[in-house]
Amino acid sequence: MAKPNKTKRPKAENPKGFRDYFGAEVTERSRMLEQIADVYRLYGFDPLESPAVETVEALGKFLPDVDRPNDGVFAWQEEDDWLALRYDLTAPLARVFAQHRNDLPTPYRRFAMGPVWRNEKPGPGRFRQFYQCDADTVGTASVAADAEICAMLADTLEAVGIPRGDYIVRVNNRKVLNGVMEVAGVLDPSDPEKHADERGIVLRAIDKLDRLGTDGVRALLGEGRKDESGDFTKGAGLTDRQAELVMRFMGAAGLEETALWAELRALVDGSDVGEEGVSELRHIQELLVAQGYGPDRIIIDPSVVRGLGYYTGPVFEAELTFEITDEKGRPRQFGSVAGGGRYDDLVKRFTGQAVPATGISIGVDRLLAALRAKGRLDGAAVGPVVVTVMDRDRMADYQAMVGELRAAGIRAEVYLGNPKNFGNQLKYADRRESPVAIIEGADEKERGVVQIKDLVLGAQIAKDATLEEWKSQPAQFECARADLVAEVRRLLDRRG
Amino acid sequence: MAKPNKTKRPKAENPKGFRDYFGAEVTERSRMLEQIADVYRLYGFDPLESPAVETVEALGKFLPDVDRPNDGVFAWQEEDDWLALRYDLTAPLARVFAQHRNDLPTPYRRFAMGPVWRNEKPGPGRFRQFYQCDADTVGTASVAADAEICAMLADTLEAVGIPRGDYIVRVNNRKVLNGVMEVAGVLDPSDPEKHADERGIVLRAIDKLDRLGTDGVRALLGEGRKDESGDFTKGAGLTDRQAELVMRFMGAAGLEETALWAELRALVDGSDVGEEGVSELRHIQELLVAQGYGPDRIIIDPSVVRGLGYYTGPVFEAELTFEITDEKGRPRQFGSVAGGGRYDDLVKRFTGQAVPATGISIGVDRLLAALRAKGRLDGAAVGPVVVTVMDRDRMADYQAMVGELRAAGIRAEVYLGNPKNFGNQLKYADRRESPVAIIEGADEKERGVVQIKDLVLGAQIAKDATLEEWKSQPAQFECARADLVAEVRRLLDRRG
Repeated sequence: MAKPNKTKRPKAENPKGFRDYFGAEVTERSRMLEQIADVYRLYGFDPLESPAVETVEALGKFLPDVDRPNDGVFAWQEEDDWLALRYDLTAPLARVFAQHRNDLPTPYRRFAMGPVWRNEKPGPGRFRQFYQCDADTVGTASVAADAEICAMLADTLEAVGIPRGDYIVRVNNRKVLNGVMEVAGVLDPSDPEKHADERGIVLRAIDKLDRLGTDGVRALLGEGRKDESGDFTKGAGLTDRQAELVMRFMGAAGLEETALWAELRALVDGSDVGEEGVSELRHIQELLVAQGYGPDRIIIDPSVVRGLGYYTGPVFEAELTFEITDEKGRPRQFGSVAGGGRYDDLVKRFTGQAVPATGISIGVDRLLAALRAKGRLDGAAVGPVVVTVMDRDRMADYQAMVGELRAAGIRAEVYLGNPKNFGNQLKYADRRESPVAIIEGADEKERGVVQIKDLVLGAQIAKDATLEEWKSQPAQFECARADLVAEVRRLLDRRG
Repeated sequence: MAKPNKTKRPKAENPKGFRDYFGAEVTERSRMLEQIADVYRLYGFDPLESPAVETVEALGKFLPDVDRPNDGVFAWQEEDDWLALRYDLTAPLARVFAQHRNDLPTPYRRFAMGPVWRNEKPGPGRFRQFYQCDADTVGTASVAADAEICAMLADTLEAVGIPRGDYIVRVNNRKVLNGVMEVAGVLDPSDPEKHADERGIVLRAIDKLDRLGTDGVRALLGEGRKDESGDFTKGAGLTDRQAELVMRFMGAAGLEETALWAELRALVDGSDVGEEGVSELRHIQELLVAQGYGPDRIIIDPSVVRGLGYYTGPVFEAELTFEITDEKGRPRQFGSVAGGGRYDDLVKRFTGQAVPATGISIGVDRLLAALRAKGRLDGAAVGPVVVTVMDRDRMADYQAMVGELRAAGIRAEVYLGNPKNFGNQLKYADRRESPVAIIEGADEKERGVVQIKDLVLGAQIAKDATLEEWKSQPAQFECARADLVAEVRRLLDRRG
């Protein structure tokens, strides 16, 4: 390990791509994690906390987003082992289930929340440590488990403060696309590796529909596409008939209910896996509708491709549908805040047995950003009542006041900096966003009273005012020392 | 980065010294962290969450326990930087304060809770990732800040369920020992490096009082000591007079109030730092007594040495005083669960300016172990109500039941494994510690009723019984389908 040079001062900086979270940011996230945990628990999921550190061997290389350029982890060698920080909560779940499977109930429903780390190039708003909040059901192939995850996701979004109508959960199924690929002749069930490159190009092309439009995607399915800069991207080389099938699959998203199912069935006609996929989707929808989760909350949407390269069956995505204003003042959709699906191979790596599993991962930091953008976080916690120090020899008197306030459940503190400059005490209270300051000088002490200053009202003036000016503000009043707690309570209650 | 061999299956194992936490363990810890945060917040402390990863340069080498054999961190090289996992929450606080000092209020009161990592040899009950829960006040030299931290520590222990009388907060002051050392002639204020080795031996000797007894410590202060195996430990080489002063300092802990202060004053007579230390201790005690924190909660105790090598002024330690039974069935004191003190040099590393700071760190995992040992954790969360699947084609019916139960705030789930073997469904419910199972077969469906099974009563019999035997148990009863939620509620309420 490199030792810092002792004669040089270290830089007080986060490593690149890491940041600190202060005050309300921390509180708001904790509260959201609790709200999410409450829903997960209600659905019968149990908490699991695995450590941040795993062996590289156990983590494997299963990063969900295949297109990511630097799919790195933070890893280091420790004696004989390579260790790494977990990059998600799914890989550790696979390890945990394989390790403890004899002691765990099956199906195993677990939720996990905590930071994950990615060794990627940081960017604006993109950090190398961020929170995930996952729920997974391991050990059941039943699509009732998938349906339940979707319903729970909708409930969770509402629990954290996204009203119905402001979000939509979209459901697709990898098997349907596989069926379309099979019918198109780019997937051979007896030789799954064949045409893998073409399928990769098709998946990436579908994923670019938003950006390239129908013509752009169509070009990528065929010979390829030249972009504005003149760069050429090689296409999948599908024939017109093959490309047409894929385009119809993507177009199916716009169809109304009855036509949608007919079109999907037609597209996968003759493919076992495709027909299974359509049946599964249909069954998920039936279960959801029976529970009252209609298209105002959850829809079947063949245009969802995110994660189709990773998951093996149903795929879910939750999107916030309201507009926010971006940094350039343009309105835009907020977009995806959660994703998940069914994966059957993770545990198999360890045990050799395929264990079906399905789950969801909520991007807590994005969800917090969305609520903040909409002004739906109820803001910072209340700052503490600050008892100022007029006479440093009477610290015990001031401590007694905060003791009484705290005993009444009111956040309070004595100013502990150098009390000489009273203005600094007021600046401090201001910076803490204190609602109230208490003043007890020698005169007040003698008369058995204290001054109570409403800082929310008085903040602006207080900033530069001298003590005497400040005391004359109408937002300040005097009360008997014995009434201190009651008067502060009254003032705080008035603010709500 | 080493890639795992693709043809070999990875081992499903935690790295050495790491473990997973399941269910109630996670919930109990979250609840305790919340309880602690509530007290910290009440005292005016604000949350801070810094990332797990810091530069090695910023972390420095400040591990608090000087005697630790492998005071290592987990570190790795990343491009030009060496990065490391934080080993405590104090070193990151120093970096944060140095980095953000112009935007933070001063004094800055912050609390932080989260895992820290130590690259040490793991042992029984000793893990390489564990939780800390810290509160610190940065930027004030006032001992009122130290007194407040002690009071808050006492309040916190009571808030998490340690009754008054079952804990004690001990306070000492590094400066008093320094004064004794100065009077003894092993500390020269004008040349602080001189005699550093001797002082190190003295500190370690005092720390071993419990284990070695008075004679053993006395030997280590002098020439040295031969232990039972014949190994010789070199002593500090103090003269009789010098050693006597140190022994008197340690003995002072047993004195009653008035004698204690007289003895401490006598021991440091002539040493400026020593006299300052005694005054500070006295002032801390006065402030605490004025707030009602008497010797039933907080005492001045010169025998506290833990951390004396690290801290620069007052030192605090919280100990649980009740006995528990150790793994060999012997009664023993539970011991320390929190420690802290004043340190003035951490921020100076970055800025060149000494910034006085004081704080406390609570060992959350030890505190949880203590409460568990005393049976004071209110146990596992309630398992979910399990709706069994008698007819797999009626999944929507069963989902409707759990939907109703959840809407009433009752934790519930449908059995999602293979429903063919009903016994497996009951075993599952058993493993989940479900209080209630619901059964609705074709017959029940037709008659508009459901079976409600009290599993807590019926658990033993249910394990091996066939469905029919199980249904005949008295703990099972039938109710109208429409009364499902009300009946389950009634049953759960009866259990409390």
